[in-house]
Amino acid sequence: MKILLVNPNTTASMTATAAHAARLVAAHGTEVVAVTSSMGPVSIEGYYDEALAIPGLLMEIAAGERSGAQAAIISCFDDTGLDAARALANIPVIGICEAALAAAAFIAQRITIVTTMERSRLPLEHLVHRYGMAGRAKVRAADIPVLSLEDPSSNARARLCQQMEMALRDDRAEAIVLGCAGMADLTADLRKEFGVPVIDGVAAAVKQAECLISLGLTTSKIGAYAPPLPKPYLGALTSFAPEAMLA
Amino acid sequence: MKILLVNPNTTASMTATAAHAARLVAAHGTEVVAVTSSMGPVSIEGYYDEALAIPGLLMEIAAGERSGAQAAIISCFDDTGLDAARALANIPVIGICEAALAAAAFIAQRITIVTTMERSRLPLEHLVHRYGMAGRAKVRAADIPVLSLEDPSSNARARLCQQMEMALRDDRAEAIVLGCAGMADLTADLRKEFGVPVIDGVAAAVKQAECLISLGLTTSKIGAYAPPLPKPYLGALTSFAPEAMLA
Amino acid sequence: MKILLVNPNTTASMTATAAHAARLVAAHGTEVVAVTSSMGPVSIEGYYDEALAIPGLLMEIAAGERSGAQAAIISCFDDTGLDAARALANIPVIGICEAALAAAAFIAQRITIVTTMERSRLPLEHLVHRYGMAGRAKVRAADIPVLSLEDPSSNARARLCQQMEMALRDDRAEAIVLGCAGMADLTADLRKEFGVPVIDGVAAAVKQAECLISLGLTTSKIGAYAPPLPKPYLGALTSFAPEAMLA
Amino acid sequence: MKILLVNPNTTASMTATAAHAARLVAAHGTEVVAVTSSMGPVSIEGYYDEALAIPGLLMEIAAGERSGAQAAIISCFDDTGLDAARALANIPVIGICEAALAAAAFIAQRITIVTTMERSRLPLEHLVHRYGMAGRAKVRAADIPVLSLEDPSSNARARLCQQMEMALRDDRAEAIVLGCAGMADLTADLRKEFGVPVIDGVAAAVKQAECLISLGLTTSKIGAYAPPLPKPYLGALTSFAPEAMLA
Amino acid sequence: MKILLVNPNTTASMTATAAHAARLVAAHGTEVVAVTSSMGPVSIEGYYDEALAIPGLLMEIAAGERSGAQAAIISCFDDTGLDAARALANIPVIGICEAALAAAAFIAQRITIVTTMERSRLPLEHLVHRYGMAGRAKVRAADIPVLSLEDPSSNARARLCQQMEMALRDDRAEAIVLGCAGMADLTADLRKEFGVPVIDGVAAAVKQAECLISLGLTTSKIGAYAPPLPKPYLGALTSFAPEAMLA
Amino acid sequence: MKILLVNPNTTASMTATAAHAARLVAAHGTEVVAVTSSMGPVSIEGYYDEALAIPGLLMEIAAGERSGAQAAIISCFDDTGLDAARALANIPVIGICEAALAAAAFIAQRITIVTTMERSRLPLEHLVHRYGMAGRAKVRAADIPVLSLEDPSSNARARLCQQMEMALRDDRAEAIVLGCAGMADLTADLRKEFGVPVIDGVAAAVKQAECLISLGLTTSKIGAYAPPLPKPYLGALTSFAPEAMLA
Repeated sequence: MKILLVNPNTTASMTATAAHAARLVAAHGTEVVAVTSSMGPVSIEGYYDEALAIPGLLMEIAAGERSGAQAAIISCFDDTGLDAARALANIPVIGICEAALAAAAFIAQRITIVTTMERSRLPLEHLVHRYGMAGRAKVRAADIPVLSLEDPSSNARARLCQQMEMALRDDRAEAIVLGCAGMADLTADLRKEFGVPVIDGVAAAVKQAECLISLGLTTSKIGAYAPPLPKPYLGALTSFAPEAMLA
Repeated sequence: MKILLVNPNTTASMTATAAHAARLVAAHGTEVVAVTSSMGPVSIEGYYDEALAIPGLLMEIAAGERSGAQAAIISCFDDTGLDAARALANIPVIGICEAALAAAAFIAQRITIVTTMERSRLPLEHLVHRYGMAGRAKVRAADIPVLSLEDPSSNARARLCQQMEMALRDDRAEAIVLGCAGMADLTADLRKEFGVPVIDGVAAAVKQAECLISLGLTTSKIGAYAPPLPKPYLGALTSFAPEAMLA
Repeated sequence: MKILLVNPNTTASMTATAAHAARLVAAHGTEVVAVTSSMGPVSIEGYYDEALAIPGLLMEIAAGERSGAQAAIISCFDDTGLDAARALANIPVIGICEAALAAAAFIAQRITIVTTMERSRLPLEHLVHRYGMAGRAKVRAADIPVLSLEDPSSNARARLCQQMEMALRDDRAEAIVLGCAGMADLTADLRKEFGVPVIDGVAAAVKQAECLISLGLTTSKIGAYAPPLPKPYLGALTSFAPEAMLA
Repeated sequence: MKILLVNPNTTASMTATAAHAARLVAAHGTEVVAVTSSMGPVSIEGYYDEALAIPGLLMEIAAGERSGAQAAIISCFDDTGLDAARALANIPVIGICEAALAAAAFIAQRITIVTTMERSRLPLEHLVHRYGMAGRAKVRAADIPVLSLEDPSSNARARLCQQMEMALRDDRAEAIVLGCAGMADLTADLRKEFGVPVIDGVAAAVKQAECLISLGLTTSKIGAYAPPLPKPYLGALTSFAPEAMLA
Repeated sequence: MKILLVNPNTTASMTATAAHAARLVAAHGTEVVAVTSSMGPVSIEGYYDEALAIPGLLMEIAAGERSGAQAAIISCFDDTGLDAARALANIPVIGICEAALAAAAFIAQRITIVTTMERSRLPLEHLVHRYGMAGRAKVRAADIPVLSLEDPSSNARARLCQQMEMALRDDRAEAIVLGCAGMADLTADLRKEFGVPVIDGVAAAVKQAECLISLGLTTSKIGAYAPPLPKPYLGALTSFAPEAMLA
Repeated sequence: MKILLVNPNTTASMTATAAHAARLVAAHGTEVVAVTSSMGPVSIEGYYDEALAIPGLLMEIAAGERSGAQAAIISCFDDTGLDAARALANIPVIGICEAALAAAAFIAQRITIVTTMERSRLPLEHLVHRYGMAGRAKVRAADIPVLSLEDPSSNARARLCQQMEMALRDDRAEAIVLGCAGMADLTADLRKEFGVPVIDGVAAAVKQAECLISLGLTTSKIGAYAPPLPKPYLGALTSFAPEAMLA
């Protein structure tokens, strides 16, 4: 199997972290092709960054599909551009927040997501609602910039742990979801430290991708995800015209 | 007052239709500045078009704010890029679906939106939910391409009327919302023909914009709509880096 | 335009406070006619007062419509008698809680209403739910009697500020709605002090009334708000028979 | 036990129908005191009638409590003035819609209410929601004026049966609730004819009243139903001042 | 009337406590037949115990119906096996959580259930949701094993009171529901001590059973509770084959 | 990997059908151990059968865990005994309805489950709600007994197809979930015939089991699924005492 992992921000080191987490759990015979978006923000923190990361993401997904990928993963926890990607692609597309919550739902009734910044909390609460987990999942923010996760001198890990403690004590959380692709390499450690299930969305998405490929399932094309209609696209985005992208 | 009306698709004739509807209801002393996005799809039909219309929209909103606009209206019924625009701008930003439903809520308990294409139905149902109207508002699609609204030889109007009849009879609708900026010029006629409130989002948004300006209210910047953080944007989108856009 | 503002309690000084707030934001050319109900409680604090304030309110709305008002505002934050008034009147009727939440929804995702007394909290929570803001808006009570708002020697303002602080810190509120018509004159001050949007329902309702009048919209009469059927009314309420009220 | 049954409309013959239904199920030793409101509409059809029926209702409930009633039933299916009555009275107060749905919930998962007029449908849908039955209970209107239920030459019964058939076939209803106090005397007949549970709210409310009295339970007075505060009431409603009503 | 009270755990002393509470409120002429399940766990604490208590419960309900009981009560607060019992029996079946919440809903807007163990909290929260009380009722656990309620030397009562205090102060509870059949004998005392309505499910269920019998209502058999189809049951459960149980 | 597949009904031929579907999608190296419950109903049609199938199911899950299974699948579409099994087992436990809906959620916004009998419809609607798919997933019943699925002379397949057609046309379904383990072998055929995603829960559950095992995730034991407490179990169920089962 060939699975495309797209990092929709433009920071290659974050792609590497996610790719490593992905390959750790990929089945024997699964190839993970990890790419970094070439246009847009270096990190996605809030609605504005998210919107501007979508064109670059879509470009990579279309390219990946043409190169033979059988499923695509969007490696940012706000599931950047998921609907647009599903409408565009013929292969299944998976968000890492979506995949993490789907896995968590099989093993716990109450879940807390710990994410990076306060401004990402409301968008993630909307995702929780969208994925049918309202009432089961809460969102906490550790107040750490995304890129500080890569800086060992920051206190990012300590702040994350503090929120996990509060989640277990005050939210009655039974499992923790790590709310940023950049936290993927902390999963094993945090599981040991806290003794509860800790879920990383990148790893979860790889397994969901394998699941859909094995089942022969892909996005339904008869409703909301019908293929975009051919039409002119003007200006700097001319190359995104559906007939060009799908060619 | 100076209100910016951005058509996020790149078809200038649709901007003209919306601008005309806007100016019909604008208060004495309100200037409506209507602009057409210069990049992206010629019409917005589904998730893919919507995502690619956002960069062009944000460019116009930033330019409009710099030119002194006191509020901005997004003139496409899927409220394209609303969250990103609110995070970016210091002036209030209003979606026409949002404005139409807000007006409808004051005069009817049950509402039906009649939009153009089936593929837009689910995205609009999500907006209905987001705006707190689930249980009160339904969405119907007349199965007409957006641009056919400008073609007098199409049977777009007849199909629209057919769905309105079904809404009044089967949905127990008490008011109708027209689910596309391109339908704005049919409002008066349809009110007469059906004898019920018919609401166009463009006109409603102009009045909401005046309302917010008069009340001295603008987007709260302390939570989900905190200003985007300065950071590099790479590739074709370099000029969208927050510090550049907000300058 | 001519807008009727009805204070459904029988305290004329509260009418004056609301009328002042209304006229501050009314458009050039809008006349605000403020009236005080002549029957019922001197303040509305809880379900019982609210129910007994409705007949006096309806009397004033019918009289106002006969005198040429084009829209009516109910100037009490529990939106006293809103449904009955909408069924009776041909002109649009607007509640100040409803108008405040509608304005808040355009500029913030999370909102806290600060009202006067604990006993009003549950009724307002029901309004929040009715207006589709459950999950977005919370209600706090400052534990101050309504009429103490007019007494400069009370600590009403201090208690109100204390609840606003808690709203911003503990509720993650992005905007504050003042939950009593008697608080209207504090709006500007509190905005300055807290640096966040603070919304008064009276002002918001005036702008919504202008909005509906400009758009040519009034209450739909084909469903829940169909005009009351002619029928005898007995005893002390004989004069409220629909055919008498609508004459 | 002494139970007060208040008909909040002013038609004594409807009181007699309800009183008969009440006494049929009352326990040995339970006295049902049935009174007709002396002020307000002769029938309650929609929001306006409902609001104007409340003062007369509250007068009778206060008088009944003074005369030793241990519980009060509001004998109109829109549960007219229920919250105000609960705030006023020290004895428990029961609505017939509320009681019918509570009984239905013990014996069926899906329920349909068949009421009289279309304009009552939305208010009843709101009650269904308030009582936690959204998703389980639907509302149908047989399009019959309330007072025609007393006219044997009308086709009221036939229209009612037609809606019951549709409820069983199209709503997957497992039980039927009769949505008007004036239908109480049809219960036994309709059960036989349709072979499914048919529930009349008046009878259900009598049993709930006995239940609460036996359990020694009455309305909690520490929250939303705290007793109305003493204060002046002006104009024609002076006698409704709380201290006068509660004396 | 003859009402069957089944204790689905196998501890006879708990049956005695519940039977005593039941007989205290039973009407003159109502016989309460109390039985203890003969197979399964000695107490029900969590999902596993609950599932294994159901066969014994069903056996007793079938036997009770054959012996002439007109209604059955399941005397465990997780409403063990309620749906299966309703499908099996022709007489109405009532859960004590269900009955307690139904009674509470008539006298309070906000309710807190205080139960025994943390592991029962989520199952009870699901019942609260099922019975339409989400948003009105909260669940607290006093962290006491079920059987310790019978041990006067335990601090079970003190822990219960502590949670009741927190419910009144922090949950804005207006009434308290005791969340275990074994707490039934504390009801009167706790009412006096706290001065708010305190509701025991066993007593409430007796009155609801009398209510349904008086009204001539029993479980609808046309939908979800259609009688089980005849079919072989294998192994140790052969005697549970529907045709054997219903014979 | 070793995955246990338990058929909670006692019909071995249905186990064979499910085992075949499971092995078709199992990864290279995954062993599927399929067992048939030895006690309880030959098919599960409604609440009563479901409750009586749980003890046999739990017995097999405990035995499977002792024999080294790393995950367990409950192969009946009502997810029989899922919560009890999760509390008992240390290995993850997966329901086939749950797994099917999780897979469907990644590829479609609107889903219809087509199940066998009308009496299973409400229980499945409750599962849809529990799994967060209310508003996205509908349930239809083809009115076919479970065991007729194995009878080629029945018209079971034709009735199933009829409901699928209605789902696509009337429910706006984008994907179909087969609502019975006995339908597993029809999946491939129906996909070809209808050209939309058709999902079988058995296959989906196998992949979710592999997913959880790969991710090193199992049921959280700190909340609702805490292990059952040691305690005596009486009568015919003595061997189900937790300490015996977990030994």
